[in-house]
Amino acid sequence: MTTLDEVRDWDTADPLAGFRDRFALPDDIIYLNGNSLGPLPRATVQRMRDTVERDWGEGLIRSWNERDWVGAPQRIGDKIARLIGASPGEVVVADSTSVCLFKLLMAAAAWREGAILAESDNFPTDAHVAGRVAELLGREFRCVPHDRVADALAPDVAAAVITQVHYRTAHRHDMRALTAKGVRIVWDLSHSIGAIPLDLARDGVELAVGCGYKFLNGGPGAPAYIYAAKELQPRLHSPITGWWGHAAPFDFSTRFESAEGITRLLSGTPAVLGLMALEVGVDLMLEADQAQLAAKSARLHDLFAARIAALCPELRGVTPAEPTARGSHIAFAHPYARAIVGALIARGVIGDFRTPDIARFALTPLTLRYEDVWKATEIIAEVMASGQWQDPRFASGGMVP
Amino acid sequence: MTTLDEVRDWDTADPLAGFRDRFALPDDIIYLNGNSLGPLPRATVQRMRDTVERDWGEGLIRSWNERDWVGAPQRIGDKIARLIGASPGEVVVADSTSVCLFKLLMAAAAWREGAILAESDNFPTDAHVAGRVAELLGREFRCVPHDRVADALAPDVAAAVITQVHYRTAHRHDMRALTAKGVRIVWDLSHSIGAIPLDLARDGVELAVGCGYKFLNGGPGAPAYIYAAKELQPRLHSPITGWWGHAAPFDFSTRFESAEGITRLLSGTPAVLGLMALEVGVDLMLEADQAQLAAKSARLHDLFAARIAALCPELRGVTPAEPTARGSHIAFAHPYARAIVGALIARGVIGDFRTPDIARFALTPLTLRYEDVWKATEIIAEVMASGQWQDPRFASGGMVP
Repeated sequence: MTTLDEVRDWDTADPLAGFRDRFALPDDIIYLNGNSLGPLPRATVQRMRDTVERDWGEGLIRSWNERDWVGAPQRIGDKIARLIGASPGEVVVADSTSVCLFKLLMAAAAWREGAILAESDNFPTDAHVAGRVAELLGREFRCVPHDRVADALAPDVAAAVITQVHYRTAHRHDMRALTAKGVRIVWDLSHSIGAIPLDLARDGVELAVGCGYKFLNGGPGAPAYIYAAKELQPRLHSPITGWWGHAAPFDFSTRFESAEGITRLLSGTPAVLGLMALEVGVDLMLEADQAQLAAKSARLHDLFAARIAALCPELRGVTPAEPTARGSHIAFAHPYARAIVGALIARGVIGDFRTPDIARFALTPLTLRYEDVWKATEIIAEVMASGQWQDPRFASGGMVP
Repeated sequence: MTTLDEVRDWDTADPLAGFRDRFALPDDIIYLNGNSLGPLPRATVQRMRDTVERDWGEGLIRSWNERDWVGAPQRIGDKIARLIGASPGEVVVADSTSVCLFKLLMAAAAWREGAILAESDNFPTDAHVAGRVAELLGREFRCVPHDRVADALAPDVAAAVITQVHYRTAHRHDMRALTAKGVRIVWDLSHSIGAIPLDLARDGVELAVGCGYKFLNGGPGAPAYIYAAKELQPRLHSPITGWWGHAAPFDFSTRFESAEGITRLLSGTPAVLGLMALEVGVDLMLEADQAQLAAKSARLHDLFAARIAALCPELRGVTPAEPTARGSHIAFAHPYARAIVGALIARGVIGDFRTPDIARFALTPLTLRYEDVWKATEIIAEVMASGQWQDPRFASGGMVP
């Protein structure tokens, strides 16, 4: 069994160790929820002060041009493109993930007749949006469990929505293999970006959306993004044709004419405050080496899994052991997971509960030390052994967005 | 003719004068663009520091509950309700204005067959969104000029989108009279809220959307809001059924079940940074007496109009003279409006240009002094008399979002 001294040696040798101090993490907690809300980059503090106090307060309307707010959706999109193996002009930042998914799926499904497919047991917003899209377009809606989605990618499916990394178990779909089946897929990368290496061009991915406030550390309710491979863009017609998706928005023309390229998927005025915060998180992620992140994520996982297996085997691991088969969080099933997570939060170990029985912990290689995993698993073991979680005040704990 | 001394007396006697210092307005400009981007409330500076540095940085995921981020869309919605004569539970803050309009219009038009109607010469995003909604629903799309929209409210129209205050001329529709025609109307209040007194309940208004970053001073790209009269809410089915519109989002159920009430029109995770900034602007507006705002707006207008008529009659006023027939901005037509606005911005008088020939100036009673109008019109007169605007560098000036 690994010792604490060994684990500390890993931290000393960790090439990513310097990133932790770039975040304003409180000292009294171990934060294992970066897949729900990533922590605050220190640079975001100044960026937000500048944006609010200087750019809005002093620059006022002039900052749309002078601070390039007007180009932010594309500028930050191009940066995200570098993180996911896409090209400049293939990503734009816009709206919430749900709204981005709606727009992209409506546009993608319009190309041909056929059913709409979604996962029944992955993060529900995707299935909800997809079901309504099917209804609006008069299509059959198919909803199958995560582990049967590969078989369901049949030729009569017009478009599918698949989340690459499962929000509970962290099981990862083989994006390349599923894409190769030839069915049009809108990938949801919410639990992938910043968590695992991505190369959408290599994998032949055509369409994707993803979230800004998880591993990208973009802030609460950060805007999401839309990816569309360049060759598909001319065929994408947004269902929400607001002025920011217009070819010449400042002509104020009555006739709608889609902008060229990915910009056509914008709708209303961009959320500047959210965009500026997101950009800092993306810039920080771009500084990190993706291979190093993946290697550290794997090692954090293995340490966490081994410690739990040894210290409290009653927590049943549900995350695949093989690194390439998972994302960057680890999850355990237990009938009282909700109370257990509640008790852990009270002890400063912040993970989250996902119904019905999952305790979930993000392993964010940018901010987490191996020693944090050591300590967190120690506290988990104490909470389990002592039965602290049985305190009635934790019965409805552990529930955070 | 009014003298500068008289104008200064008006400022001294102005019951709203105290509000100006609540905003961080630069000293070297006269800001007449609060209908495009409202200025920064001083209280927003601290609110944003707290939100970013304390609530996100230290509270992290816990702030969803402990700082009630989770309830912000409804809480701020209820505050906006008080500004527009609606009841608690009738307004929710969500997404951009374009996305809000899309959702509400899709939901409203689904109730019955019939055409979709929009204005051809008002702010184009509304007509663009409405045209696409008509296409998606397989309906006839009718688009008529602002001054013919009353006649176009025919019984075979399923739903109409009407902007109450025209974004160029400031001409105000009679909301009560048009509503009384019995056609379902989605009102766009973007240039109304905070600018003119509103009483949606009295006027029988059923549905509306509006913008947060203009007269509400909610910050660049602030989230917009949706209003729906209580009795209509059970019949509203959002086209974008994301998890925040679910009756029990944290059950993570595959089956979509609409939340009760206005919450059903939410889709994805709310944009927290934008919401917190917006709330300060709304709180500030709630402190002001609406009748005093309307009276001051009228007097600012009359002073502006009289000065321009006397000093540079070549600027042709296009805003109605009667206070109840207009919003709270004033506009002038001139073939070189773009260059004129460019030259004015260089002189620190910040209005904006709207194609093809409109120079537009917001008269925001919360922040503007009568003396500002005096000075601004003085500078306008100088720019016109001197021909400064003919400098080639202004030919493409004056264009801001």
